Amino acid sequence: MSHITFFSDIMSTLFERGMGKPSNASRVPMIDLCTALLSPQGEVSGTRLAREVLGKYRSLDHDGRRDFFRYLATDLDLDTEAVAQAAKAYGETRDAANLAKLCREAEPRRQELLRRLNQATGATQDLVRMRLDLLGMIKDEPDLAVIDPDFRHLFASWFNRGFLVLRPIDWRTPANILEKIIEYEAVHAIDDWDDLQRRLRPVDRRCFAFFHPAMAEEPLIFVEVALTKGIAGSVQDLLAEERAALDEADLDTAVFYSISNCQAGLAGISFGNSLIKQVVEELKRDLPQVKRFVTLSPVPGFAGWLAEIAPDNAEAGELLRAAQTGDAAQIKPLTASLKRLCAYYLAEVKGRKGLPADPVARFHLSNGASLHDVHALADTSPNGLRKSCTAMVNYYYDLAKVEQNNESFVTQNKVTLSKQVKALVEQSEMTGKSS
Amino acid sequence: MSHITFFSDIMSTLFERGMGKPSNASRVPMIDLCTALLSPQGEVSGTRLAREVLGKYRSLDHDGRRDFFRYLATDLDLDTEAVAQAAKAYGETRDAANLAKLCREAEPRRQELLRRLNQATGATQDLVRMRLDLLGMIKDEPDLAVIDPDFRHLFASWFNRGFLVLRPIDWRTPANILEKIIEYEAVHAIDDWDDLQRRLRPVDRRCFAFFHPAMAEEPLIFVEVALTKGIAGSVQDLLAEERAALDEADLDTAVFYSISNCQAGLAGISFGNSLIKQVVEELKRDLPQVKRFVTLSPVPGFAGWLAEIAPDNAEAGELLRAAQTGDAAQIKPLTASLKRLCAYYLAEVKGRKGLPADPVARFHLSNGASLHDVHALADTSPNGLRKSCTAMVNYYYDLAKVEQNNESFVTQNKVTLSKQVKALVEQSEMTGKSS
Amino acid sequence: MSHITFFSDIMSTLFERGMGKPSNASRVPMIDLCTALLSPQGEVSGTRLAREVLGKYRSLDHDGRRDFFRYLATDLDLDTEAVAQAAKAYGETRDAANLAKLCREAEPRRQELLRRLNQATGATQDLVRMRLDLLGMIKDEPDLAVIDPDFRHLFASWFNRGFLVLRPIDWRTPANILEKIIEYEAVHAIDDWDDLQRRLRPVDRRCFAFFHPAMAEEPLIFVEVALTKGIAGSVQDLLAEERAALDEADLDTAVFYSISNCQAGLAGISFGNSLIKQVVEELKRDLPQVKRFVTLSPVPGFAGWLAEIAPDNAEAGELLRAAQTGDAAQIKPLTASLKRLCAYYLAEVKGRKGLPADPVARFHLSNGASLHDVHALADTSPNGLRKSCTAMVNYYYDLAKVEQNNESFVTQNKVTLSKQVKALVEQSEMTGKSS
Amino acid sequence: MSHITFFSDIMSTLFERGMGKPSNASRVPMIDLCTALLSPQGEVSGTRLAREVLGKYRSLDHDGRRDFFRYLATDLDLDTEAVAQAAKAYGETRDAANLAKLCREAEPRRQELLRRLNQATGATQDLVRMRLDLLGMIKDEPDLAVIDPDFRHLFASWFNRGFLVLRPIDWRTPANILEKIIEYEAVHAIDDWDDLQRRLRPVDRRCFAFFHPAMAEEPLIFVEVALTKGIAGSVQDLLAEERAALDEADLDTAVFYSISNCQAGLAGISFGNSLIKQVVEELKRDLPQVKRFVTLSPVPGFAGWLAEIAPDNAEAGELLRAAQTGDAAQIKPLTASLKRLCAYYLAEVKGRKGLPADPVARFHLSNGASLHDVHALADTSPNGLRKSCTAMVNYYYDLAKVEQNNESFVTQNKVTLSKQVKALVEQSEMTGKSS
Repeated sequence: MSHITFFSDIMSTLFERGMGKPSNASRVPMIDLCTALLSPQGEVSGTRLAREVLGKYRSLDHDGRRDFFRYLATDLDLDTEAVAQAAKAYGETRDAANLAKLCREAEPRRQELLRRLNQATGATQDLVRMRLDLLGMIKDEPDLAVIDPDFRHLFASWFNRGFLVLRPIDWRTPANILEKIIEYEAVHAIDDWDDLQRRLRPVDRRCFAFFHPAMAEEPLIFVEVALTKGIAGSVQDLLAEERAALDEADLDTAVFYSISNCQAGLAGISFGNSLIKQVVEELKRDLPQVKRFVTLSPVPGFAGWLAEIAPDNAEAGELLRAAQTGDAAQIKPLTASLKRLCAYYLAEVKGRKGLPADPVARFHLSNGASLHDVHALADTSPNGLRKSCTAMVNYYYDLAKVEQNNESFVTQNKVTLSKQVKALVEQSEMTGKSS
Repeated sequence: MSHITFFSDIMSTLFERGMGKPSNASRVPMIDLCTALLSPQGEVSGTRLAREVLGKYRSLDHDGRRDFFRYLATDLDLDTEAVAQAAKAYGETRDAANLAKLCREAEPRRQELLRRLNQATGATQDLVRMRLDLLGMIKDEPDLAVIDPDFRHLFASWFNRGFLVLRPIDWRTPANILEKIIEYEAVHAIDDWDDLQRRLRPVDRRCFAFFHPAMAEEPLIFVEVALTKGIAGSVQDLLAEERAALDEADLDTAVFYSISNCQAGLAGISFGNSLIKQVVEELKRDLPQVKRFVTLSPVPGFAGWLAEIAPDNAEAGELLRAAQTGDAAQIKPLTASLKRLCAYYLAEVKGRKGLPADPVARFHLSNGASLHDVHALADTSPNGLRKSCTAMVNYYYDLAKVEQNNESFVTQNKVTLSKQVKALVEQSEMTGKSS
Repeated sequence: MSHITFFSDIMSTLFERGMGKPSNASRVPMIDLCTALLSPQGEVSGTRLAREVLGKYRSLDHDGRRDFFRYLATDLDLDTEAVAQAAKAYGETRDAANLAKLCREAEPRRQELLRRLNQATGATQDLVRMRLDLLGMIKDEPDLAVIDPDFRHLFASWFNRGFLVLRPIDWRTPANILEKIIEYEAVHAIDDWDDLQRRLRPVDRRCFAFFHPAMAEEPLIFVEVALTKGIAGSVQDLLAEERAALDEADLDTAVFYSISNCQAGLAGISFGNSLIKQVVEELKRDLPQVKRFVTLSPVPGFAGWLAEIAPDNAEAGELLRAAQTGDAAQIKPLTASLKRLCAYYLAEVKGRKGLPADPVARFHLSNGASLHDVHALADTSPNGLRKSCTAMVNYYYDLAKVEQNNESFVTQNKVTLSKQVKALVEQSEMTGKSS
Repeated sequence: MSHITFFSDIMSTLFERGMGKPSNASRVPMIDLCTALLSPQGEVSGTRLAREVLGKYRSLDHDGRRDFFRYLATDLDLDTEAVAQAAKAYGETRDAANLAKLCREAEPRRQELLRRLNQATGATQDLVRMRLDLLGMIKDEPDLAVIDPDFRHLFASWFNRGFLVLRPIDWRTPANILEKIIEYEAVHAIDDWDDLQRRLRPVDRRCFAFFHPAMAEEPLIFVEVALTKGIAGSVQDLLAEERAALDEADLDTAVFYSISNCQAGLAGISFGNSLIKQVVEELKRDLPQVKRFVTLSPVPGFAGWLAEIAPDNAEAGELLRAAQTGDAAQIKPLTASLKRLCAYYLAEVKGRKGLPADPVARFHLSNGASLHDVHALADTSPNGLRKSCTAMVNYYYDLAKVEQNNESFVTQNKVTLSKQVKALVEQSEMTGKSS
């Protein structure tokens, strides 16, 4: 069947009953729909075909979706031979035509398919969900991994910082957005609407999220902020149910106590760094009395590291045993030793590429924050006990220094420490040496 | 100088005087700023560096900008050797890592630079203007043409149909948008605010534009619509100053009499096809009594073609001479012959790749419109006389048929004609044969 | 102390510390503040003084507020002698000056005070709350009742239908508005946010509220609507937790199942009638397939009336006893008798001024609705059992007939009945006669 | 014909053809429509009837409207006898019922008619226009003046300061609002859209207007502001076509150079005082560097006063003659004398009730402004020459002092003067004495 007849056939099946009537798309195989969408004619019928493909995808079960991904991975892959030839040609004659050919050949055709799918209303959200499906399947079928770079490439372009919109989230925010804040909070779970209200409504609480214009009802990432007098050292205090809000005039510090990514389908497309910095600028404008901007962050790798060193380190063992009782009070006598060990862990213990072993530390330090303070008994929840023996820490965002800090972090793996953390690390090292 | 020290130096020059003070960016060479932005540290300082680069670019004169483009064309070009090797490696082992490497190598580094520049607020507009500069310089310096595919690639992705927003333009639209409509109208110039008001305010007039969320005050393309009773055949009548608006109940036809692209920096990124179709849908919803959707379009290549055939065709010569008097009345006796020739020209005269020679015909027919009618004395302006001997035509958008029409146009170069145009073409061919 | 010096003193006390400093208003007696606000100078300092008075009022306890009302009732009352004289003067010479004087004299000065208080931002809401306080105190101190007509007069003017804005309430509505919907629902209590969601989110549910621009975050009245196929006869079915939403295409009826006034301080200022009619128009526009508009309303006076007639009416007694068991199943065998009695009650039993005894019937029938149907076992909640023995009824809003229905209701006390209700009433009367 | 039958008849005429069909309202006499709207049934059919009355009013010619006003003035007037009796009854028994009766009797029935008319959408605007008609007719038919207090009473209530919304007017404002700014500018005419742009677009220009929510597209009053370095003394300089905007950082003064009422139908309902003060607060918030807030105001009564004193005052005569040449240059040598005389005129010359004779002075001084400076050659337009011999003055709004200034103005007729104006007045008085 010639190419031309093929396209006519698809089209007449789709549209034979005319406008407004139910579509016959379900009878057209997915691959034929995709082929039609990728054809030159596909540009004019694009929105319609894109809608059909996405609708069909949604109706597929797990196996159907896996078959679709296999099709993307193989049928719509690169022709490597052609790429190599095009590269050679451009190497010989560096003109725009040769370059265009090389670029065309070096891009898997599935990327153009994804781009054309995005023409349909609401498609961006669908594609983000599609990647989530893909990420789930890659574990079982690693050959599908070749598709992911195309999603990442497009999403990095589409969700470019310049396109994101920062919006405050408060008690005046529409309920359909708020329910997503409840759903997506990943650090300190929000129990219900009353809990949410306690985090959004008081004058000393703030929340901000990034949105993309094409997904206006889906937050991408959000951060919860407590405005305080002095630097908070315990998340229990911040989230206490019976808490009187502070007077605006007394506030001097902003504590970022929770930052949550909302879209698992956007994994690897990072917004967190921009979010914190833009929120700092927003708060400075609104509340000039607030001078300090710190996080109150978990130390998720701490207990794991303690377990590693416990065979050789009595303090570590003692701490772990105290935490395992499940009773935070058991930690109390060990406060000093916990703070020393935690400071040492964050400042000195390195993982891959010489970067800090702790993932949260890695995130904030690479953003240019400094390690400001370490707290014991700061997260006494079961999770806090189990993962970090109740430790939490403050990372400090001093906008006048983030670029320099980031630079020494990236170029020299240097972690910037406050005086008090430096002291803790030194004590710890002496202890270490003496042991 | 090591890479690390280089980055520190740039950063400390930029930020030595601290937050809020005037930046020293002007002292840092453009290439160093770009190198810093492309470095791994550049991700954290990205917004700041992007702002500096764009600001510096704006302050450059013609030669400075040309030098910047030369830098993009050469220093930030592909390594074709590396592309070829990566293609070979992926050909041998088709895994995600090899594919990622190939994709990375096959993308000129300037593309990532442009992407990172887009982080700054307002950057999208700046980049669109930058491409406009580039297009202007390519004529004199064709080697710069290798940069353009990167702009096109990014713009096609960023200005994807799914991200555009259709907005009505009317007398309630903010003045800063309206002044751009005046500025950008490319078909029938808008003289002043009174003329604009005549096109926007009456109940039988409409205007719609596409916008991109990151350039909210810049229309991308807009279309002007006259709602009429019957199909209009003269643009003078549509734009007459002393015109009584029709009753809403009497309207049965929408005439798209002007469609203008606004952003020369987005040349080649096409929106027109989607715009017309979406406006048709919008109008159908709002005004169910309106059943027909046609354009009233110029025939810009008509006079040129007449000149070509005039040596062998007496009618063509007569028409041209009448038009050259500059007095539309001279065309009147030739109406029948003008309509026959014009119908023939649009339906039968082909240019490159067997497509219609007339560019406006090419646009609408490839969108799936049919050629509906031909009018004489329809544009009696000097421009209308000179280019098309006063001819204008209606292209008909029947949403139930655009996909089929497009398909036969693309696959068989077939132009769909109405009965009356078919008759004109037949008369014309007989005339042609008899002559 | 002269009038002039008095005003200076107040002002200098209020403002001695200058702009931005805390006000000394708390030291100035309420009555002095009010006198200053009513003085000619008060016009310029109005917003400031109004803010002070309202702030001071908020800080008063019950006795302080009562004293304030006593002051309004006596010191700021009419001079009846002056009114009578002004009336006489205008009777003699009907010119604008005399009329103006009469109008001035015939308006208690407290009305001007309330009007001037309304200059402060947010004052309208404060005044609505103030009237609520007043209504509460009138019971114990009937002399304060003379103030109320001034509130009513102003509120009737300010909350004039022409100033109200109808807004849909749905799951995209800000949470601070939604929480008020939960709080104010007066007919079928909303348990929590999940229950609210069930009433707002499904495609076959709607809610609309009236707002006043000066109280944009306070709904005034709202109505909840279920879209159904056929006329619903049971509120349990409408509010069931496990309910599948209907397809939009299947909907043919809108059931107004709950209408709640939100502002007790606006008692007597009626919006309900306009609300229902405007919502009917709104729904007709959005959903042309919906043809019928009925309420599903309680019959709050039914059980009381049954108790009155029970000594002479065996059926009534039986019904009441069944209801008192608290078990709706006991009503089941009595369905036919319940429907007959209820129809009779609503159609024939009259109270004050010959109007229907049942207050809900009075409201809808005077709005021009007709009595369409009577249902047993339609509200099996404890409240439904106790007050109406599970009966609920449909009032029918046929916009083409509401004006005529209203007219015969107002002029002839005539209740318009559907065929089936008419039949029930006839059966009931025969039964009545035979008993 | 009984009342009841009358109402039915009206209604059936209006609605006999059912919903959606053209109304028969035009056949029903205006007075019957009004009677129906005022009847108890009128409340339910209110919106419909109001729409009919307002539509019919719009279709009336001058005589028809005059007849309608005569009807309001006579048929819907007070019953003064009833008022006097109700006043007596309330004097005897001060209870709420008697008071309510008195209030009812003391309000002409036309006031309730106007209130009910306001139920229709867009009615507020119609009623404002209706009053404009009325004000025009009162001159010829003074008996109609009795209606005006009812309009004023309602408008004062409806356009209460608490209901008005302040909005910035700039180049982003919708064109339909901007065209009204052009139309309504009453002080320094706006020539065209370019002139408007010069007043709205530069960073050192601002404009603000009050709006009422029920007339959202009609500004009520607006003020134009120039931000300057130092106090401007010439309106030519402010409005010069070729003017470079100042840097934001250099601005220290806000000059209110034009304030225009937009709605002649709201004459006597004053907003100007609140507008200036609220704009001052707005500007303080936005531009903390701006410390001074002055007007640049005309002196419309100056030339008239000079003409009065010219027989006895040589300087005055000389000034007038210079102005009458129409050549501002002739004023130049007389600058000193002009400033002295103008200062004296504004500070010392009184009209009715001992208030300043100049109306603009009266307005600003009673708002609490002080007289800050006097300028010659400040308005060299023909109008400026003719009315004020080119003089303009600055009134100074110091929010910390407006209340005190207002108080001494109202209570002691005292005009607060700056040092330099005081000096001018003293010189002038000495001159005066010496002459």
